[in-house]
Parts: sequence; C-alpha cells; structure tokens
Amino acid sequence: MKNKEIYNYLKTWSEKYKTDLIDNILPFWLENGLDKKHGGFYTCLDRNGTLMDTTKSVWFQGRAGYIFASSYNEIDPNPAYLSASRSAIDFLENHCFDTDGRMYFEVEENGTPLRKRRYLFSECFAVIAMAEYSKATQDKTYSKKALEIFKLILKYSQTDGLLQPKYEPTLKAKGHSLTMMLVNVAVVLRSAIADEVLDKTIQNSIQQIREDFMHPEYKALLETVGLNGEFIDTGIGRTINPGHCIETAWFLLEEAKHQNWNKELIDISLQIFDWSWDWGYDKQYGGIINFKDCKNFPHQDYSQDMKFWWPQTETIIATLYNFLITGNEDYFNKYKEINEWTYKHFPDDKFGEWYGYLHRDGSVAQPAKGNIFKGPFHIPRMMIKSHLLINDILQKMEK
Amino acid sequence: MKNKEIYNYLKTWSEKYKTDLIDNILPFWLENGLDKKHGGFYTCLDRNGTLMDTTKSVWFQGRAGYIFASSYNEIDPNPAYLSASRSAIDFLENHCFDTDGRMYFEVEENGTPLRKRRYLFSECFAVIAMAEYSKATQDKTYSKKALEIFKLILKYSQTDGLLQPKYEPTLKAKGHSLTMMLVNVAVVLRSAIADEVLDKTIQNSIQQIREDFMHPEYKALLETVGLNGEFIDTGIGRTINPGHCIETAWFLLEEAKHQNWNKELIDISLQIFDWSWDWGYDKQYGGIINFKDCKNFPHQDYSQDMKFWWPQTETIIATLYNFLITGNEDYFNKYKEINEWTYKHFPDDKFGEWYGYLHRDGSVAQPAKGNIFKGPFHIPRMMIKSHLLINDILQKMEK
Repeated sequence: MKNKEIYNYLKTWSEKYKTDLIDNILPFWLENGLDKKHGGFYTCLDRNGTLMDTTKSVWFQGRAGYIFASSYNEIDPNPAYLSASRSAIDFLENHCFDTDGRMYFEVEENGTPLRKRRYLFSECFAVIAMAEYSKATQDKTYSKKALEIFKLILKYSQTDGLLQPKYEPTLKAKGHSLTMMLVNVAVVLRSAIADEVLDKTIQNSIQQIREDFMHPEYKALLETVGLNGEFIDTGIGRTINPGHCIETAWFLLEEAKHQNWNKELIDISLQIFDWSWDWGYDKQYGGIINFKDCKNFPHQDYSQDMKFWWPQTETIIATLYNFLITGNEDYFNKYKEINEWTYKHFPDDKFGEWYGYLHRDGSVAQPAKGNIFKGPFHIPRMMIKSHLLINDILQKMEK
Repeated sequence: MKNKEIYNYLKTWSEKYKTDLIDNILPFWLENGLDKKHGGFYTCLDRNGTLMDTTKSVWFQGRAGYIFASSYNEIDPNPAYLSASRSAIDFLENHCFDTDGRMYFEVEENGTPLRKRRYLFSECFAVIAMAEYSKATQDKTYSKKALEIFKLILKYSQTDGLLQPKYEPTLKAKGHSLTMMLVNVAVVLRSAIADEVLDKTIQNSIQQIREDFMHPEYKALLETVGLNGEFIDTGIGRTINPGHCIETAWFLLEEAKHQNWNKELIDISLQIFDWSWDWGYDKQYGGIINFKDCKNFPHQDYSQDMKFWWPQTETIIATLYNFLITGNEDYFNKYKEINEWTYKHFPDDKFGEWYGYLHRDGSVAQPAKGNIFKGPFHIPRMMIKSHLLINDILQKMEK
C-alpha cells in the first residue's frame, strides 16, 4: 500500500471512530444505561437496549465515569458527558464503598450491596473515573480521592492476609491482571495529580512484567507465574490470554511515550505484541481468540476459541501505536486486518452498539449489548484512543 | 416403531453400554488416570490420555471412587475396579480433609492442598464413594464414615455463617444444586446404611424442589430462587439449566421407585422433564444446550449454546426411566433421538472415551478428555444406569 493510500485510509477511520463514538456508542448508553432515578449506570441491556437486569456492576460505574469524562476531555466537551461521568462517580461514592474502604462488586439499582470480591478491580476503575473527572473539571478534590483509593489498592495488594486468598498458602502464585492494570491506572492518575508512588508503581509493574511474566522460552507473556516468575506447569500456569497481553503492550507504550519514547520499553512492548499476535490471531477465521496453552495442550476455558469484543479493540489500539512508533507497514497491515474484521462482525447495524460475544467463525453467540462485564468501556476507549493516535500518525506523515 | 423393533433396539444398546463401559471408558481412566505412585486419580488428560496437569480434583476422587465401586457392584465384579475405588478413597482420607472436617477442592498429586471452596460438593462425592465401596466390600466402617460426612454437610448447609456466603446478607437466595444433589447422595447412602436423617433429607429436598424451585408460570425449574421460592428477576434468577433439571428428574424417580413407585413423585418428575426438554432440546442441531433465560432474554453464560457431555448423558437416563414407568412411546423416541445424537458426536473413535465440549452444531470445541470438571463420572454412570434400566424395560416388555 502506498503512503497516500495509508494516509487516506487512516484519515477516514479517524473520523469514523469519532462519529461512531458520538453518534452511536455514547448515546446508546446515555439513553438506555444511565439511571435517571438512582444515578449511575445499568449495563445489563438486551440487543435493543431493553433493561434485562437492574443489578449494577461497580466496575462499570468507574468505567463509565472514566469513559464519559475522557470523551469530554479528548473528543467533545459535551456537558451531558460530564454530567453522566459525575452521576457514575456520585453513585460510587454514595453506595459502593464498604466500611473498610474497599469496594463492592455488584450492588442493586438503589445501591444496596450484593457482592464483594477478593479482587481490587472495582477500586482501580473508581480511580481512573475520578482522575479523568478531575481533569475535566479542574476539581482537585477528585484526584486527591483517587490517589487515596490508589494507595488503598497498593496496601491491600502488598499486605499478606488482608485479602482472603483464593488458593491455600501452598500455591505461591501471582497474576498478570493487577500488575498490568496498575500501569494504566497510575498513568491515568498521574495525568491528574503528581505523587511519587505513581512512578514507583509503574516501574515495579514493568519490572515484574519483564522479569517474571514474560517467558521467552514460550515466546509468551503468561497470566499466572510463581512469586519470582517461576513457570507453573498446570493449565492455569500455561494460560496465555493474547488480548490481555496486547492490552498490556499498549499500556507500556503510553508509559514509553511519557518517558520520551524510552527505547527499551518500546522494545519490550513490541516483543509482547509480536508474541501475542502470533498466539492469538486466528489465521483461519480472523480475529483474536481468547486463550491458548503455551505448551499447545487444548485450553480448558469453554470460551477459548471464541471472539470477544475487547481483545479486538485492544489490538486495534496496539497496532496503531506500533505503526505510529515504528512506521513499519506490517503493523499497519495488521491494524487494517483486525480493524476490518472487527467492524465486519461486531457492530449491530439495526440497534446500534456492538455485540460482545461471537463464535470462532464470527457468528453472534448471543446478541445482548451488555452485562456486568460488558458496558461502556473497551469500545469507546478504542474509539477515543484510535482517533487521537491516527491524528498523531497523520501529523507525522505530513512532515 | 413397533414393540418388537423397540425391544431389539433397546437390547442392542443395553449390551453396547456394557461393553463400552468395560472395554473403553473404565480402561481409559485405569490406564491414564489412576496414579500408581500416590494413589487416587488424575483427570486432566489430553485427547490421547497424556497427562496435562497433575492437579487433582477432590470431586473426582469421590466420583471415581463411586464409579469404580458401582461398576463392580452392578456390572462386573472385577477386582481392579474395587482396588481403583479404594485407591481414590484412601487418597481422600489421607489428603483431602481440612482440620475442620471439611474437604478441599483441588490438591497436588501428592495431596498437598491447593484450594478449598465454600461449596459442599467435594463432601457429597466422598459420601457416595464410601457408600458404594461399603456395599462392594460389606465393610460397614465406610458407610459409617460416609454417614458422618453426610451429617457434616447438613450441618454446614443448615447453619448460617458456617460457610462464607458468596453474596452479602442483602441477597437472600438459595440454589438448586445442593438441594438436588442431596437427594442423590441420600439415596445412594441409604442403600448402604440406614438412618432417619436420610429419608428426612430426601423429603425436605423434594418439598423445596416442588414448592420453591418449580415455577409453573415459566414452565421451569429454576436454578436460584428466594429463600421461600420467590422469583428473582435477574439473569441469575431467570437461569434455567435444562441438563441439571433433567438430572433432578431422574434422581426423583429413583426415590419414587423406593417409595413403591409413588405416583405424585412420578408426576413431579415427568413435569420437570417435559418442561426442561422443551427449554433445552435444540430443534435445529439436536442435543441439549446449556442455559436458557426463562423470560427469553439472551443467557449471559459464554457457553449457553454449547453442548456439553453431561446434559446428554442425564437425558439418556431420564428418557429411559420415563419410558420404563410410562411405556409412552414419545419418551422412547426422545431417548432414541438424544442417544443417537450423543453417540454420533461425543465418542472419540481414535483414542477412546468421549469429548466433553462441543459447539452448538456438534463440532468439537476442544478435544481433551478430562479436566477438574470432567473425568470418570457422568459417562460411565449413564452406561451403568442405562444398562440396568433397559434390562428392567425388557423384562417388563417380555411379560
């Protein structure tokens, strides 16, 4: 493909992401998800937006709070976005904290707590919501609250015994999820407030990803390893989640950018991306599959060969980032491939928004638009990030 | 189909189940699953029997202990079966109990505990293993131990606060799983030892199934209801698991038989079966699917449209039971339909045993023979039960 063609292709898509965000995705959630009575967001919506279940995901109060503030900050300063973000944050503050400072996982529509879990992701999403809202409003009280929650996450994740462990003490393992999540949470929070704990956390996570979770002998970033990065030869220890790894890859590039395009960090990120694309890209049907076993045994998760929405959106962001940094046309081609496969199979032309769960061949496995794990997050984040990334790429190409 | 044809068809299948059990299923697990060094069973086996993961499922020590003793008792008094059963039971007794009398969920191959959960299924499977082994050996110490564990299950399930609840106290709900499981566990245990708590437990479970879990307004037996059977209008509360309900249906028929073919119990069971077949049978591709939502919203479990092995085996048993009791040819036709669909798609002609996880259309989703949820249980139990049920049907037809 010639440069001119690449330029035009990207320019078209940059606009498409923006209009899709503003005209399709955000209105779908504002109209069908925003709870005008109790505040906050519902996410259990059927294909046409019908509310299927009034249970509220605490993750999604934070995620929606972040997305609407980020859309306001980066794409369009629409007051409705800011007020939606604030509604989610108010709901979090009024209903989603337990007396120990930790947060619930699910609550009723009026905020009555239903379930608390041993993980810290509710807290992570609350941090990015408050940080982004603070940037939108210049109201520092929110970034300060976010920093307090961030420090609570660190305390709970670093103090043995504070969280009830899933496994007996005999199984000494650690997971990639919180490690990578903390990079992103700290990067977002740092854009709102300065604190040395943020850079320290980012450095610590990067070190663990590089030294413990990356296993060159399998050309893989593993989801679960021993406390010092030891390979655990079980189904769990051999699990590769390619979409997750690719998400980590672009999280690292955001930090590399902050460090004036730190070359070492770029190399690590590209390595993770290249490994994970090779594991995850489905040469037969297209798209990124869910799970692989690094010794090539059949992966035991039911959904291992399915195509979920978020590994695709993360790959769109990562390939654009890679192309921006390297100018390597191979990354552009991968971007084009995953972008077109995604847009061919996920958007719902009739009722708007995207399906979330496809079979391996791209057929729709179930058509609902949301549940407690799918709502306004990965899809709009991809549109915001990709719009901005392409603008950077076009600027670079214009030089 | 004429009676003669039905007779011949059933006779052929009765033999087929027996030879399949003796020549295929049990040898597969004895050769590849039985741990000659530490005792007990591995179940994480690849398609050809290769050991993929040495983690041992505590459920499957009990399940295998039950299956090998039951095969010995009902089909073929092969000493290798008895010793395999004993190996699993010894492993349970030596390694799988915590100091509070409760059991672990996963252990290492040498018995080091890995994970304990808040559910009582490890305990349930230990009970049926010891009960069946006690019948095989006439060694009453095992039925007495089983009864002690049974009483511990009742204590833990009936005493608030003993098990850490999954949900906050605000969500008052109960599940169908343990309720139905206790019917089967008590029926098996009662065949080894008498105790009034067994009949009382069975009656209590039946009453809850009939009054709380059966919801005629949806023609459904629901998986989760309020403490007094209230309908909960969320994704969880609307969940129908047809294979699970059909398993309950034949559990009730075993009790009906014990009560001299109690007519009321038969009617409840047939009602549950008829409802659940209508929800679960896939008219387009055949087989029983995993989940439905009783208000016909899209079910949110990834695997909702997949075909797992065990809903099919439970339906084979239930349809045979129904035909034995009613002589209604419609049940024979349903039996034939599910039996042939199952035998067409699940058995692995090359390496023996059955695949466990198929896509909706019957194609293999992943070819491993076992994991911590699939091992020697539903498939051999179906073969044992179906062989015996058909013999009863043939006897009745010969009259």
